[in-house]
Amino acid sequence: MDKTKIGLIGLGTVGSGVAQLLLDHGDRTARHAGRVLWLEKVAVRDLNRPRDCELPAGVLTDQLDEVINHPEIEVVAELMGGVDLAREVVLRSLAAGKDVVTANKALLAAHGPELCDAARKHCRTIAFEASVAGGVPIITNLSQCLSANQVTSLTGILNGTCNFILAKMHSEGTPYGQALEEAQRLGYAEADPALDVNGADTAQKLAILAHLAFGARVAWEEIPCVGIDTLDVADIQHAQQMGYVIKLLGVAELTPDGVQLSVGPTLVRRGGAMADVSGPMNAVHVRADAVGELFYQGPGAGQMPTASAVVADLIDTAAGRTRVTFQTLELWSDRSSRVEMADPKMAVGGYYLRFMVDDTPGVLAKITGVLGEHAISISSVLQHEASDGSAPLVIMTHDTTEGEAVEACCDIAALDCVRSTPVGMRVRG
Amino acid sequence: MDKTKIGLIGLGTVGSGVAQLLLDHGDRTARHAGRVLWLEKVAVRDLNRPRDCELPAGVLTDQLDEVINHPEIEVVAELMGGVDLAREVVLRSLAAGKDVVTANKALLAAHGPELCDAARKHCRTIAFEASVAGGVPIITNLSQCLSANQVTSLTGILNGTCNFILAKMHSEGTPYGQALEEAQRLGYAEADPALDVNGADTAQKLAILAHLAFGARVAWEEIPCVGIDTLDVADIQHAQQMGYVIKLLGVAELTPDGVQLSVGPTLVRRGGAMADVSGPMNAVHVRADAVGELFYQGPGAGQMPTASAVVADLIDTAAGRTRVTFQTLELWSDRSSRVEMADPKMAVGGYYLRFMVDDTPGVLAKITGVLGEHAISISSVLQHEASDGSAPLVIMTHDTTEGEAVEACCDIAALDCVRSTPVGMRVRG
Repeated sequence: MDKTKIGLIGLGTVGSGVAQLLLDHGDRTARHAGRVLWLEKVAVRDLNRPRDCELPAGVLTDQLDEVINHPEIEVVAELMGGVDLAREVVLRSLAAGKDVVTANKALLAAHGPELCDAARKHCRTIAFEASVAGGVPIITNLSQCLSANQVTSLTGILNGTCNFILAKMHSEGTPYGQALEEAQRLGYAEADPALDVNGADTAQKLAILAHLAFGARVAWEEIPCVGIDTLDVADIQHAQQMGYVIKLLGVAELTPDGVQLSVGPTLVRRGGAMADVSGPMNAVHVRADAVGELFYQGPGAGQMPTASAVVADLIDTAAGRTRVTFQTLELWSDRSSRVEMADPKMAVGGYYLRFMVDDTPGVLAKITGVLGEHAISISSVLQHEASDGSAPLVIMTHDTTEGEAVEACCDIAALDCVRSTPVGMRVRG
Repeated sequence: MDKTKIGLIGLGTVGSGVAQLLLDHGDRTARHAGRVLWLEKVAVRDLNRPRDCELPAGVLTDQLDEVINHPEIEVVAELMGGVDLAREVVLRSLAAGKDVVTANKALLAAHGPELCDAARKHCRTIAFEASVAGGVPIITNLSQCLSANQVTSLTGILNGTCNFILAKMHSEGTPYGQALEEAQRLGYAEADPALDVNGADTAQKLAILAHLAFGARVAWEEIPCVGIDTLDVADIQHAQQMGYVIKLLGVAELTPDGVQLSVGPTLVRRGGAMADVSGPMNAVHVRADAVGELFYQGPGAGQMPTASAVVADLIDTAAGRTRVTFQTLELWSDRSSRVEMADPKMAVGGYYLRFMVDDTPGVLAKITGVLGEHAISISSVLQHEASDGSAPLVIMTHDTTEGEAVEACCDIAALDCVRSTPVGMRVRG
C-alpha cells in the first residue's frame, strides 16, 4: 500500500492526540485513506519537555525545517497555535509543496485570504475541520454535505468554555467569576481565558463559518461582539423565570441587505435543542433552503475530539477529497465574495431589556413610553419587589431593530428614574 | 465550464425536487461541483401524468434506455423506488458506464453487495446519502467525517412517520390507530404504511448504517425488529410517569461478541436530545472512540430535504469525491466484513416490563421472585389501582440480557396471577 508521509508541527494537547491516532490506528486511517498515513516527523520547540505520547525514534525534532523541507513529507499539520509563527509555518509549507491541515481558527480568521491564495498559487490545499467546533464536523457539512442548499441562517454555540460557565451560572446560580474559576480548575478554560469569555473566539469561528456558508468575506473584528464576562447572574435568573436560558451564540443570517452577524449572550427558549446543549459541548443549527433545519451537537474542544477532526482532514487530504473541495470552494478568493455584511443596526429580533429603576410611581409608564417612541412593542414584563428603593424591571420586546433597541436604551438610561446602565440581550425563539 | 450530464429515473416527489434544484440552482451546483450539472433526460413510466415541475422540452421520456444508454449521460439518479426494477436499472446503468446515485434504502438493504460489486467491476460508483435519514447527511458523516474513529454505538430515530405517530400518542394520548390516520392525512405516512410502522424501514436503514460504521454485513431481515403497530398507549403513559418517552430506535452497538443490532420501541429518558426529537424529524446519536458523542437531527423525509441529499451526491460524484470514497470504503466487498452480528440474546440493557396482574395478595412477590431467579434486579416499580380485579404492574430493571428478560417474561406469563402477554421494551439512559 502506498504511503503518505505526514509531518506535525506542535505536540501539545492536540498534536499528541493526532500522533496517537496515527500511531495506534494505522489500519483504520489506511482503510479510509486508501494509503498508509505515515507519521514521519514532529517538530517541537523544546525536545526535553515531557510528552504524553511516545514517538518512534527519530521522529521528534526541534528544527522546523526538518518538517517543512522534508523531501518526502506531503502533508503538514500545523498544530502549534498562535498566529504569527503559525502563518509563517503554513506559508513556508505551502511554498515547499506540502498540503496543510490546521486546527487554528485564529490564524484562518486573521490570514485566511493570504493563506488560501498561497495554497492556490502553489497548487496545494488547506483543510481546517478542527478550527471550528472541535469534533463536530461542521466544516465538511457546510462545504460538502449541504452543497445543494443556500444556507439562510447559522446559529452556533461555538465556545465550550463559555457554555460550561453559563451552564454553571444557570444550574447553581454561581456568579461569573466563580464559574470561570471552576472551568479553569477542570481544564476547560485557558490560564488566560480572555479570548474565550469576551466572545472573540466565537467571532473568529463565526467568520469562518459565514465565509463557508455565505461566501461572506468578513474580518472577525467587525462582527458585533459581546462576551459573557460582563454577564450578571441576576439576568440569568430573570431569563429562567421567563422560560429561557442564556447561551453565548454566534449568529449569521442572510437578509436582503447582506449577512447579519453577531456574537453575544442570547436568550434561548427552554425545551429546544439549543437550550439543552450542556457543559462544554458545542452545537450548530443550520437553516437552509432545500434541507430545512439541521442540528449538530458534539464536543467543541478536547484532545481526542479535535484530533479526530485533524486526522479526518489528513485522510481527506491524502485520499484526494480535499483537493476537489478546496478547488471548487475557492475559499477566500476574490471570486468568492458573494455577499456583504449587513448593517448591524438593522438586525431584527426580540430583545430582553433590564433596567434598575427607582421604586416610585410612573416609572413603568415613562420607560414604556420611550419604547413606544421607538416603535418597540412589548411582549412581556417582569418586575420584582424593590430593595433599597430600586428594583429590576425586565421587559421582553417583540421584533425590533438593534438600532432602535440601542437608541431606546440610551434614552431610557438618561431618565432620572433609571439607576444603572440598561442591560440588553437578543432573544431567539 | 465543463458539463456533467445527469439522467433521472423517476419523477415522483423526490425526483421532482431533484429536477427543481438542478434546473433552478445551476449556479449553486456548478460552484460546488466545479462543473455544470446538466439535467439531460428524465425517464418516467407515464408521460401524461401531471408533474409539479416543468422540464425543458425533450428532457422527459418514457424510455428507460434513453437515460441508461444515453451516450453523454455520466450519472444516473435512480429515484423510482421499489426493489426489482430499481435493481435492474442500477445494474444496467453501471454496465453502461454510468455512476449511480440512489435514495433507495430498500434496494441497498436487499442488494447492496451485488450492486457495489457491479460498480467495482465496471469501475463506477454508487452514492446513497438520501437512503438513510433523508436530509441528515449521516452517510457522509460516517464514511468521511468520522474516519479517524471507531464508532462504538449508533442510535437512530430513522423513521419520521413512526416518530410523528409516537409524538402524537405522547402529547395527546391518541391511540395508535388514530395517530396513524392523522399521519396519513398530513402526508407523513404512506397509503400502505406497513414497512414504516412494523420497523422494517428502520431495520433496512440500520443495516446500511451498521455496514458503514462497523463493516458489518447484515441482512436487514436478521435484525431483531419490533414495530410501533402493537404499541399500547397505556405503556406510553406509564413511561411518561417514570420520566421517559418511547421512541422507535434503531440501535447498533459494538460489543466484544460482535455488533448488537435491534429495532424497537424504546424508553428514552426525558430531557435528553433524543427524547426531544419532535414530529417527523430523524436523529442519529453516534458514539465513537476519538470524538466521543455526536448528535445529528434533521428532516428524515420530504421532497426537498431528500432532494438536497441526492443533489449533494450528484455534486460529489461529478466533482470526483464519490470516486475516492467509494474506492476506499470498499462497501459490501468481501474484504470489508470486519465484524459479525452478535447474538441478540446477549444484548445488555435495562428493561421496562408491564404485566396485567390479578389484584390479589402475593402477586408482586411471585413476579419479583421469578425476576430474581433470572438474576434480574429491579430499579423501580409502578403499580396503579386495580379496575375489574386486575391492574398494570410496571417494573423497570437494571441491566440484564435480552435472553434473561425474555425467559423471565415467559415464566411470568405462565403464572396464574398474570392475565395477558407481558410487554417488554428496552430502556436507554
